[in-house]
Parts: sequence; structure tokens; C-alpha cells
Amino acid sequence: MDPDAVAKAFVEHYYSTFDSNRAGLATLYQDNSMLSFEGQKFQGTQSITSKLTSLPFQQCKHHITTVDCQPSGPAGGMVVFVSGNLQLAGEQHALKFSQAS
Amino acid sequence: MDPDAVAKAFVEHYYSTFDSNRAGLATLYQDNSMLSFEGQKFQGTQSITSKLTSLPFQQCKHHITTVDCQPSGPAGGMVVFVSGNLQLAGEQHALKFSQAS
Repeated sequence: MDPDAVAKAFVEHYYSTFDSNRAGLATLYQDNSMLSFEGQKFQGTQSITSKLTSLPFQQCKHHITTVDCQPSGPAGGMVVFVSGNLQLAGEQHALKFSQAS
Repeated sequence: MDPDAVAKAFVEHYYSTFDSNRAGLATLYQDNSMLSFEGQKFQGTQSITSKLTSLPFQQCKHHITTVDCQPSGPAGGMVVFVSGNLQLAGEQHALKFSQAS
């Protein structure tokens, strides 16, 4: 399968889960996963999910603008880079966001 | 050395080179390096440097807002994520940028 298509499918799944059932992100992390979020570091499914489910907003909607990917490491992994807008419920203006994974 | 300090030093070196001597970025890429730039892919020192030196602006200044890093792969590599503002000469408003490397 085309790596770009894999990356795009993963990104769509990740953010639709984020926007509809944030606790479900737990299925997308493992115990050796790491999250760096605005300068803070979290490791492991529980720590990462706890951070993401306690963000100071409830309903949100990610609008993806770009998805780029590159192969990473010898085991067929990849780095995916995403940018877009984040609309929070009740806020007039969207925030810019970007994330690499 | 602290990985965060290494990442920060690399980022400062990368963008000060970008802003002062863009052709000098060639020393920071290798022939197996890849650049994804706004949806386009470039591989190798020459291809990457050619892209970066032909961007449609001359003088610019990157102002770094955040630097995050995570270990990547078994060989001691790391992924570095940067965000900030890009001020172009003659433009009133800065652009937002982000990059992972």
C-alpha cells in the first residue's frame, strides 16, 4: 500500500477518534509510546490518554490541511507530519495546530 | 548530553544557517536525507538544497517558539519538532511555520 495513503488513513482515523471519542485514542498508543505536548512529556498509554482526555476543552473538530510522511528506521516505520486548524466549540476563531507522529 | 539541549542547539544552528547562508544547509543533509516541503518530496543533499535556495523569498528570519524531541529508532536518533514564526523581508505579518526533522 502506498505510504502516503497509509499516513492519510491513519491521520483521518486518529483525528476522527480525537474529535468523537477521545478516550478511544488509548487504542492508538502503546506502553512505549511517547507524547510531547506543548513542552510536556508523557509516556505510556495511560499517561498519554489521561493528558489528552483532560485538555481544557470538550468538543472540538480538527480540519486537516496537510499530511506528509517519510520512512523512518529499519523496521518499516514512518514519521507523519500533520498541520491544520482546530475548531473549539463556542470559539469563533480556529486555532492552528501541527503534530508529528 | 541532554537530548533536549542537543535538539535545541541543532535547531538554533539549522535556522541561523537558513536565515544567514541558506546554501550552507547542504552541510546538514546527506544523500539519504529526505525533505517533504508543502507536499513535495526531495531526496539527497543537492535536491534539498536546490529547493531551499530557490524558495520565493530572500531574506527571512525564523523565530522559534517551541522545540520538542523524542528518541527515534535503535541507533540513538531523534525526531525534533519545531514551531515558530517566519518573518519575511518587506512583509508586515509573520507566517506560522512548523517542521519535524
